Amino acid sequence: MLSFDPDDTGYLTELAGYVAIPSVSRDATPETMRAAAEWLAGQLAFADGRVVPTEGHPVVRADWLGRPGAPTILVYGHYDVQPTGDLAEWTSPPFELTVDAGVMRGRGCSDDKGPVYIVLKVAQAFLAQEGGLPLNVKFLFEGEEEIGSPNLPAYLREHAEELAADLVISADGAMWRPSEPSLSIASKGLATLDVVVEGADDDLHSGRFGGTVANPLHALVEVLAGLHTREGSVAVDGFYDGIPELSAARREEIGRVDFDEASYRTGLGLDEVFGESGYTTLERLWERPTLEVNGVTAGGKYTVIPHVATGHVSCRLVPGQRPDAVLAAITAHVEAAKVPGVRVSVRPDSGSVPAYTIPADHPAIRAAAAALEDVYPGEEVLLAVIAGTLPATALFEDVLGAKTLFFSFSTADEKLHAPNEFMRIPRLRQGMRAWESLWRLLAEGPHRLAPVTRPSADVPTSSERSTTP
Amino acid sequence: MLSFDPDDTGYLTELAGYVAIPSVSRDATPETMRAAAEWLAGQLAFADGRVVPTEGHPVVRADWLGRPGAPTILVYGHYDVQPTGDLAEWTSPPFELTVDAGVMRGRGCSDDKGPVYIVLKVAQAFLAQEGGLPLNVKFLFEGEEEIGSPNLPAYLREHAEELAADLVISADGAMWRPSEPSLSIASKGLATLDVVVEGADDDLHSGRFGGTVANPLHALVEVLAGLHTREGSVAVDGFYDGIPELSAARREEIGRVDFDEASYRTGLGLDEVFGESGYTTLERLWERPTLEVNGVTAGGKYTVIPHVATGHVSCRLVPGQRPDAVLAAITAHVEAAKVPGVRVSVRPDSGSVPAYTIPADHPAIRAAAAALEDVYPGEEVLLAVIAGTLPATALFEDVLGAKTLFFSFSTADEKLHAPNEFMRIPRLRQGMRAWESLWRLLAEGPHRLAPVTRPSADVPTSSERSTTP
Ligand SMILES: [Zn+2]
Ligand SMILES: [Zn+2]
Repeated sequence: MLSFDPDDTGYLTELAGYVAIPSVSRDATPETMRAAAEWLAGQLAFADGRVVPTEGHPVVRADWLGRPGAPTILVYGHYDVQPTGDLAEWTSPPFELTVDAGVMRGRGCSDDKGPVYIVLKVAQAFLAQEGGLPLNVKFLFEGEEEIGSPNLPAYLREHAEELAADLVISADGAMWRPSEPSLSIASKGLATLDVVVEGADDDLHSGRFGGTVANPLHALVEVLAGLHTREGSVAVDGFYDGIPELSAARREEIGRVDFDEASYRTGLGLDEVFGESGYTTLERLWERPTLEVNGVTAGGKYTVIPHVATGHVSCRLVPGQRPDAVLAAITAHVEAAKVPGVRVSVRPDSGSVPAYTIPADHPAIRAAAAALEDVYPGEEVLLAVIAGTLPATALFEDVLGAKTLFFSFSTADEKLHAPNEFMRIPRLRQGMRAWESLWRLLAEGPHRLAPVTRPSADVPTSSERSTTP
Repeated sequence: MLSFDPDDTGYLTELAGYVAIPSVSRDATPETMRAAAEWLAGQLAFADGRVVPTEGHPVVRADWLGRPGAPTILVYGHYDVQPTGDLAEWTSPPFELTVDAGVMRGRGCSDDKGPVYIVLKVAQAFLAQEGGLPLNVKFLFEGEEEIGSPNLPAYLREHAEELAADLVISADGAMWRPSEPSLSIASKGLATLDVVVEGADDDLHSGRFGGTVANPLHALVEVLAGLHTREGSVAVDGFYDGIPELSAARREEIGRVDFDEASYRTGLGLDEVFGESGYTTLERLWERPTLEVNGVTAGGKYTVIPHVATGHVSCRLVPGQRPDAVLAAITAHVEAAKVPGVRVSVRPDSGSVPAYTIPADHPAIRAAAAALEDVYPGEEVLLAVIAGTLPATALFEDVLGAKTLFFSFSTADEKLHAPNEFMRIPRLRQGMRAWESLWRLLAEGPHRLAPVTRPSADVPTSSERSTTP
């Protein structure tokens, strides 16, 4: 067993320096993003860590390939973070890692800087204490995960040979909840779009023109309200197409999960849960797709009739749904609304992602479960679903032909993407132990990772792939 | 007849200096607001022009009382302007008065800096050429009209004796359209509110929580969509209470107005008009109240479920409607919506304003019509309604016991409150001639203004007034 620093202070101080770099991929300067990438590359010096330019924010790459004959894994994570949102809602400055009653708080500490930090420390400990890692490890950290990884596909396709691995292990993702160890056997896909309603050429004075012309915002709220039934189902024809019916066996399995709906609810500050009728909360979370209106942009607290009103919509998809078909169904539904006096259009965003799954009996899942049992003795490892989207996974399967194991030690309740993001400090040490154990298990013994077929050098190009049905 | 400067250049240069002061009452500094007030006070030096502090932005006051026995009028206007809105939509910098094919463009040039400038030049010309004004004139210009005149009521009540007048003449307002002279015999009231929907304690990740909890934005769009019928009527029970039925005579009168709906529509860049069914466009504009959703604040183009969603709503009221009753009706309607999983509330804004009217046969209307006929010979003066709201008018009636004549030379199509606000340059000279003629007509001859009853010194206090039914 590796020995880790018995006092967390050193780890927290070092991690604080990483969190202090405000690497918000949506709006940080190239210099700030590069500083975060350089920080990672410095930590990976033992494996020739380097910052590699892409069309957008750079990726960080490193390789430790000192175990010929042993399996090869690709460790994935990201150094970019979400915007802070309303600063007034933060109880401490977002880019100062603040320790508070067993948790650390700061933007990115749980998504994904802390979980990536764990891997770095494990690799460094192997090097220092055993002179090498138990298996071959390639590292790939990107800086655009929170904006949909726009440049990762091209990077992967151009470097498919170099990145070839028997398994991808993602340090991104999250355990479902703090009460027991869990592994994710699926993640939801994502398709997003804007509904745009246009009226007059300019904003109009609501007194001088009100009542005589259609208000684009009235049309927008009507269209958006029409996307759901009052019972909480998505009202778009074809939205649920292709989804296999939820089996009685899976329902039973989910029903056996110890899930306290009352504390889920009160933990969020809610009086009641709400969702698609006919499903339990856990079924809704793991097995059913969603359509959420995330924002509306139009006008303000003035007495004007805005001339453009825009609603942003995102859908989380489950296996069986095709992102293009979902976007087409929503477009058809919206265009059928026929609201008088305005022009209504749908603008799908590019870069949608299908849902992703890894079989529950995949060797990587079995090894990961064993590693977690080492760290959490006597606790059953729960097989859950990441209701979020990790776009890289579908790409890894497509381009590298490798499945992805989610192995993150953040927890889904840690206010990822919201103000006051935090991470539980004990997860750092637990994570280190678990990654150590996982790497040892994948390298030898009954859970040794068998090499899988690799893609050939002629990886399909983007245009060829887009013609695939 | 007074002689005015035959060349507009001098006027435009001087007015440009006034427009250059960005006196946006919503967010300018006190220094900027004061600079605009000082500019006005300087123009009023002939009448002891002075800047008088209030709880908010100061008022500008001046008095020329050199005609004992002649009627006394109070000239009202405002020196504050609306925010610019999106700068990218302006074709020239908003605070640089730009002359362009017969119009001048700049924020506030039409609302209300240009129309106030006209009065200043007329008064100065009377002084210079005739040694005095034909009647007694008190001047009152405020700096908070565009934010609902929050401090005007207290100022008026405290200075009711000092401001006493036989008639208020407002340089704020607008002619209905450029094609003929018009007078306004009414203005609409205003009542505004926020609909607030609250969900969880924080914004939630739409993947990790989507589908299991109610989205406040879904509830908001449903509630807002329920405020209207698909046919364009307000769906709120009681909203139309108290409004007298539109008489056949008034319908006929409005029907006789030469109104080209197609050019109204195309002038706004619209394919069709839209509004309450059963009424024509002009009837909707002049005789019917409206309810407009002006803005929605919630979330953005991110994949989050916002924890609060707010819709801002404003209603334009007509005679017969009580603002408090309208707000109560909307509150009851919204609260009856019973949307599961969220808390829905209504937050009425203070400072609502009832509709205002002046009889078509009021002596001031007759004098003003005669003045316009002098300036626009051979054209019929149209009696229109200001579909906007001028909160000061109800106050003047309440506190000073004086009716208000709207006498503005801006035009309602001049993009007031929108980007690229402009004013027609010939209206400046026409306005000067008309104010000269109006003052002469009110001072002597068949249209001489008869003194009206003034309120006594003990003006009712705010708390007494609010108990009035
Ligand atoms: Zn992440
Ligand atoms: Zn105005």
